Amino acid sequence: MCGITAIYCENEELTPSLLYYSLFSLQHRGQESAGISVFKNGTIKTKKGLGLVSEVIKNSDLKNFESKCGIGHIRYSTSGSSSLENAQPFVVKSKVGTVAVAHNGNLVNHLRLRKALEAEGSIFVADSDSEIIAHIFSKSLSRKDVIGSLEVLTNLLIGSYSLVILVNDTVVAYRDPLGFRPLCLGEIENGYVVASESCAIDALEGKFLCDVKPGEAVVIKNGEMEKFKVAESKEEASCVFEYIYFARPDSIIDGISVYDARKNMGEELARESPVEADVVSAIPDSGVTAAIGFSMASKLPYTECLIKNRYVGRTFIMPKQELREVSVRLKVNPIHKNIEGKRIVLVDDSIVRGTTSKKIVDMIKKAGAKEVHMRIASPPIISPCYFGIDMKSREELIAANHSVSEIAKILGVDSLSYLSLDGLLKALKRCGRNKSYCLGCLTAKYPLSWSEDEK
Amino acid sequence: MCGITAIYCENEELTPSLLYYSLFSLQHRGQESAGISVFKNGTIKTKKGLGLVSEVIKNSDLKNFESKCGIGHIRYSTSGSSSLENAQPFVVKSKVGTVAVAHNGNLVNHLRLRKALEAEGSIFVADSDSEIIAHIFSKSLSRKDVIGSLEVLTNLLIGSYSLVILVNDTVVAYRDPLGFRPLCLGEIENGYVVASESCAIDALEGKFLCDVKPGEAVVIKNGEMEKFKVAESKEEASCVFEYIYFARPDSIIDGISVYDARKNMGEELARESPVEADVVSAIPDSGVTAAIGFSMASKLPYTECLIKNRYVGRTFIMPKQELREVSVRLKVNPIHKNIEGKRIVLVDDSIVRGTTSKKIVDMIKKAGAKEVHMRIASPPIISPCYFGIDMKSREELIAANHSVSEIAKILGVDSLSYLSLDGLLKALKRCGRNKSYCLGCLTAKYPLSWSEDEK
Amino acid sequence: MCGITAIYCENEELTPSLLYYSLFSLQHRGQESAGISVFKNGTIKTKKGLGLVSEVIKNSDLKNFESKCGIGHIRYSTSGSSSLENAQPFVVKSKVGTVAVAHNGNLVNHLRLRKALEAEGSIFVADSDSEIIAHIFSKSLSRKDVIGSLEVLTNLLIGSYSLVILVNDTVVAYRDPLGFRPLCLGEIENGYVVASESCAIDALEGKFLCDVKPGEAVVIKNGEMEKFKVAESKEEASCVFEYIYFARPDSIIDGISVYDARKNMGEELARESPVEADVVSAIPDSGVTAAIGFSMASKLPYTECLIKNRYVGRTFIMPKQELREVSVRLKVNPIHKNIEGKRIVLVDDSIVRGTTSKKIVDMIKKAGAKEVHMRIASPPIISPCYFGIDMKSREELIAANHSVSEIAKILGVDSLSYLSLDGLLKALKRCGRNKSYCLGCLTAKYPLSWSEDEK
Amino acid sequence: MCGITAIYCENEELTPSLLYYSLFSLQHRGQESAGISVFKNGTIKTKKGLGLVSEVIKNSDLKNFESKCGIGHIRYSTSGSSSLENAQPFVVKSKVGTVAVAHNGNLVNHLRLRKALEAEGSIFVADSDSEIIAHIFSKSLSRKDVIGSLEVLTNLLIGSYSLVILVNDTVVAYRDPLGFRPLCLGEIENGYVVASESCAIDALEGKFLCDVKPGEAVVIKNGEMEKFKVAESKEEASCVFEYIYFARPDSIIDGISVYDARKNMGEELARESPVEADVVSAIPDSGVTAAIGFSMASKLPYTECLIKNRYVGRTFIMPKQELREVSVRLKVNPIHKNIEGKRIVLVDDSIVRGTTSKKIVDMIKKAGAKEVHMRIASPPIISPCYFGIDMKSREELIAANHSVSEIAKILGVDSLSYLSLDGLLKALKRCGRNKSYCLGCLTAKYPLSWSEDEK
Repeated sequence: MCGITAIYCENEELTPSLLYYSLFSLQHRGQESAGISVFKNGTIKTKKGLGLVSEVIKNSDLKNFESKCGIGHIRYSTSGSSSLENAQPFVVKSKVGTVAVAHNGNLVNHLRLRKALEAEGSIFVADSDSEIIAHIFSKSLSRKDVIGSLEVLTNLLIGSYSLVILVNDTVVAYRDPLGFRPLCLGEIENGYVVASESCAIDALEGKFLCDVKPGEAVVIKNGEMEKFKVAESKEEASCVFEYIYFARPDSIIDGISVYDARKNMGEELARESPVEADVVSAIPDSGVTAAIGFSMASKLPYTECLIKNRYVGRTFIMPKQELREVSVRLKVNPIHKNIEGKRIVLVDDSIVRGTTSKKIVDMIKKAGAKEVHMRIASPPIISPCYFGIDMKSREELIAANHSVSEIAKILGVDSLSYLSLDGLLKALKRCGRNKSYCLGCLTAKYPLSWSEDEK
Repeated sequence: MCGITAIYCENEELTPSLLYYSLFSLQHRGQESAGISVFKNGTIKTKKGLGLVSEVIKNSDLKNFESKCGIGHIRYSTSGSSSLENAQPFVVKSKVGTVAVAHNGNLVNHLRLRKALEAEGSIFVADSDSEIIAHIFSKSLSRKDVIGSLEVLTNLLIGSYSLVILVNDTVVAYRDPLGFRPLCLGEIENGYVVASESCAIDALEGKFLCDVKPGEAVVIKNGEMEKFKVAESKEEASCVFEYIYFARPDSIIDGISVYDARKNMGEELARESPVEADVVSAIPDSGVTAAIGFSMASKLPYTECLIKNRYVGRTFIMPKQELREVSVRLKVNPIHKNIEGKRIVLVDDSIVRGTTSKKIVDMIKKAGAKEVHMRIASPPIISPCYFGIDMKSREELIAANHSVSEIAKILGVDSLSYLSLDGLLKALKRCGRNKSYCLGCLTAKYPLSWSEDEK
Repeated sequence: MCGITAIYCENEELTPSLLYYSLFSLQHRGQESAGISVFKNGTIKTKKGLGLVSEVIKNSDLKNFESKCGIGHIRYSTSGSSSLENAQPFVVKSKVGTVAVAHNGNLVNHLRLRKALEAEGSIFVADSDSEIIAHIFSKSLSRKDVIGSLEVLTNLLIGSYSLVILVNDTVVAYRDPLGFRPLCLGEIENGYVVASESCAIDALEGKFLCDVKPGEAVVIKNGEMEKFKVAESKEEASCVFEYIYFARPDSIIDGISVYDARKNMGEELARESPVEADVVSAIPDSGVTAAIGFSMASKLPYTECLIKNRYVGRTFIMPKQELREVSVRLKVNPIHKNIEGKRIVLVDDSIVRGTTSKKIVDMIKKAGAKEVHMRIASPPIISPCYFGIDMKSREELIAANHSVSEIAKILGVDSLSYLSLDGLLKALKRCGRNKSYCLGCLTAKYPLSWSEDEK
Repeated sequence: MCGITAIYCENEELTPSLLYYSLFSLQHRGQESAGISVFKNGTIKTKKGLGLVSEVIKNSDLKNFESKCGIGHIRYSTSGSSSLENAQPFVVKSKVGTVAVAHNGNLVNHLRLRKALEAEGSIFVADSDSEIIAHIFSKSLSRKDVIGSLEVLTNLLIGSYSLVILVNDTVVAYRDPLGFRPLCLGEIENGYVVASESCAIDALEGKFLCDVKPGEAVVIKNGEMEKFKVAESKEEASCVFEYIYFARPDSIIDGISVYDARKNMGEELARESPVEADVVSAIPDSGVTAAIGFSMASKLPYTECLIKNRYVGRTFIMPKQELREVSVRLKVNPIHKNIEGKRIVLVDDSIVRGTTSKKIVDMIKKAGAKEVHMRIASPPIISPCYFGIDMKSREELIAANHSVSEIAKILGVDSLSYLSLDGLLKALKRCGRNKSYCLGCLTAKYPLSWSEDEK
């Protein structure tokens, strides 16, 4: 996963800070690399690097990135290739000028596109989706205008793509016709902000204007903002996992409060799978909101059984074999008084591989819990995500290979229930908007089809 | 404030990792500097530096610090002098060998001690309390044994001091006779751990043995652990602010669960200062546990009104004047749905200067709260701390200069109540142990007297 | 200026060290950036960065760059844009695989080439010559073989270009038809080395095989080395300034020992412009060899009047205004005893702007020299270099704007003579090979013509 | 070995730059660590670190070190313990204020002094000589004045010690009664400079005033400079190896030009051990001046047979076993034309272990020299130095274990001669001053006696 942002601000001095702060508020969407690009002195200037936003962008950079317009990107640490080469924005120069692209999503046909472009003579320097997008877009610009070129992209790209693009001094934002990944628009003093989530608009004390609709583009030039319908979107398929886990709870995506959605999931879960118990608790931080919802609906008191160490980070030294057990304990530690002799409903948002869940259940049992009833505020994950969430292959997904009762046994809990698909959709509908979602990871049915060999 | 740890482990390979993990679990006690010392090849080897434990100690260091015994320290960022010179452990060499000292606390007579030592010909290289302690202790060792030298320290030092000391290959831990700062002892596989808080013992999957009692020393040598009564302690005066704010909630200090204490404070607060409202919420993270207690006692539902950005850290770029307002918003962001039209009880653990509280109240009001009733789970802070908590001077303490109703007006809340001193003590007593505390910051009465010119 | 190298070595472990050492021995050709590329696991891996070779390539890199074949590059610090973006090797990916290019020289038609390629739809990421070369070469490879593609390059590129190229696992070296920049081939244990200068072959204890001839290519694949005549070269035009100043004295370029050439220049200079004096001395280090030649021919004793500080480097702190005079004095310091009361012949290889020369003459006069007779072992530089030597614009070249007697007055010397063009060519011819040279900077006549607007 | 400097300058802004430049000009005296101390705001501020001056002191430091007075130090990389702990200046605080000490030399009784001080209760933090000096001096200052305290030092210290000391805002310089290590005084605009060598005064465009005499102290306070005779010095014993190898050739030490001395040594050597040959050459850089002297006296022409790579430095990657031979070749490379078929006199200043000499002789032979006649411009080194030169133990000194003819055989030269002791002293005397020297390394007779167990 990734987070993207774009700024247009008449006060050039503020643009680099605004890019920084909006990326900073999207940091949960990716910790591997960060980067910003601005249009300055007739060209596009870029700084990108491995690490958190605060490690890559320094005070001394701000002066060099003063400009009216810029874009930013943060990248998730996917397994393996953590390389600078894949950091974004990706910048290309052609006869139309300089183009910088930042991309959130995943193209399922990127290998085919790459081969097709190479067959036509295209030459690449990296291996990333975003370079392909930059090439197609930049080539098209020599024949068509920005909107025409976004149409070209739409016709060629299969997959998810929320984009922010600098075409020289023009800021472009575009969301794919299915609207997989979120994208929204806000107004700030003397300008505009586009960002993956509304929390970034809040961080700049901006005013939320609207979500960028699936298939819609936003173009900002010389202070004028205009929206364009680029692609007809028959059905929406926004990622349900953004609501379940990925987005920040204080964001509002497509009119639905993420916090509300999670609380409602917890409430539906309480209704679907009630249990006689003493307290409701959560695996922090991801399960907390659903647990509060469960507590409200079940009237069981909400307590904290586990305390999370706030300092777990990237540079952490990995334990030696003899201390391997220590690893989970460094991240969360039980509150014995709240556990001992108690029947506990333990809520989490989802289970992917189940290994950490198992260690935490062990820890709680060892701390003296009488019973542990695990409640998961989403349906079982049975299929990989091809559209941007870094989910393991089918082999690693515990629910792809085991029944719920088997999982309960593996985890060592006294009972285990997942929220039903119906319950999930009901929880979302109760947030006030009827939408359709990509439910691929929960149903193995994807809103797009593509040739099997790309999977 | 600071955190300290000592390890004795027969498996030499593990000692550096164990020091690292225990410091890591105490990271909330200080983020300015970190350091470790071990006894190796007849001398004491030290690594210390500015930054988090994970920034100072690297994988490549582990090999160089293999030893049976070591100590570690982390230091709080006090205003001003963030210098390497003050990082600990502090090491001195004398005819008795090498001594390394790590100190949590504050000496009120350090200037006098320093002058007295200088008058006798002592020569220093830094300005820190811990160098003074190292000097006195090391000098004494030439005439007395370890316990005798701890007696010398006790006679000379006025203030708070939990200490871990390496005397060549002997590990020594000592807690001052009033027991201001916490210190506890645990058993690990093939050894022992001493640490500021029990969460460090948990982090090593160790077994909690006991708190080091006020005036008590623990000496570990050649695998043998022994306890000594060094000083008679008429009354205990352990810092109440550790329970209110400073310690990790999953720690148990002197038999009292910090989590329990905070929840009880919230409950007492609900009883003392009830209010008709729709929800109870907290200023994250410090107010959460008390808010849960308040919720339980008041039967008002607990919700989250504010989401905290988990990535706020040291290297953050400070906003320009034009963006100054942005600063608090980057740290916490409101959940509008949980606030709009609601009467909210907003719980925090304490108020020091009040400036951040005011900004947060503004934010919640702007998000549409109908009423904001602030409830503080401790009495007003009216006097500075001289024993280790980095609390501002009297001028900066809002409650030292304003009545509760004035503070309510300044903060812009509909009502404001603090927990009473009685309520605080009742909350602590309900945790199951009757103890006496240092309440200096709440009462301006300190358990020690010292000449005014040192203040 | 730049230095380039290529290694083919059957012992994969040694390749990264061999690249490192050969770049290290070419460090005088550029201190701005360094980089290496090797073919590994089906792709090309690159490390490049700003700084000296020893600052960019670390011990920890060696393991990651084990391979049979690799290329390396070091770049000169030209005024202004010292950016990582321009560091080489430059790597591109296309349907023929991955191509890495390292380039020594300068293209005078790079803007036109770039525009032409952009018009055809090419997309670039940097601003460098070498990206253009990589594009043309890589595109051509989809239709032609390596030699055919080098022919394409030869037809399109106007300027100087010694190249080393990796085409997947094939090592290619090529020298432009005029042979502006040097390039030579050596044999090492289990392989080959190609490098800008023969001193790099010596550094690897290799055996010099031959210079790469103008228009000639060397292709090394699977241990087989083959040479190809790619372009007919009517006349040679190798840069005379390599002999005068740029190359290392221990290198042999196109059969001519650089040391010999310089010594001969000094001898010719002594014959052309004798002077009654006590001693011959040099401005270190550049004038030393010519001064020794002058001494031999004139029978005047050679002495050292100036000592150079060996530690002057890039990170040096620049003097404040008040200490500006200090600057030259930190680099060279006079030996008073060798100067006082003496009539000194002061030899240097060339004069570009004349500012440092003036300061040094002042210093020697102040040290008590009776007379200073400056002798320059090359003709006046009257025109810029367009083929790779970082020589100032015409405005900054002292000899482009002043007669020799004016320059003598400016420098404050008692007499000044330059070597004549005839003398220079005689000195070179005496080295044993009759060759033709690019003498552009000395005659303003260049061996290539190109449209004026590119200058 | 080390280099020291002290600055007093009324223009506070310039002091940090002046310290930097003078250390920079002494860089040849030590590359391991560098450091500066200044008196500022009532205390002494210090920056020190491992590496070259230009790596340790940065532009951003200058502002923080503005002051009227400061001292600086650079340290030689002795085998083994390259640790920050031993970097100087060493600073101590006592009742008399803050004292910073920088020391060039070596104490032979430092272990005894340390034990004696420890027995009296002194406590140390490092292992260095300079901490001992700082302790004794600082302790003494509580009873005596600066000169009295220098007398105390003189009575206690056995060994070599040129010192610069800051006592709060007073600059003190002192040279031991035998004057082992050089120290000189210069005048600069608005102030004074004290430095190990006169080249540092030159670097600041200062005016040389005098050498600090053995047993003499210089005290500078409030702009007033005063000299004191602290110790009666019966005989001088300045280190002859400073003239032979260590000092910069452009320095003048105790009235003797180092350049002159070396040239004279070369001349005496030519007279003592003439040889029929074609050319005289040197092992660069150390042998160059003596070679020029040899050439002048012998009338044999001076040529360069070896070119030195100017970029050899600390961060260099060490060769793998397979490339071990490469190592010397990276440092020096032969000029074949100057060697082939020639009978060469190869001059070096001295031979310590002989290993590098052997490799270079091999290289020259392989390059086709007809004969190699090695001439060493100093007598054989037969005994270690205890007074500051990092010379190997007796076991490693080739001349301590082999006769001259054996050494000739080991090195593989056609003949070998050393300068006689008489020749050495004659060469020095011819420089115009009759002095006595420490000749310990050449005669095994030392100007000081001390108990054998310290050796």
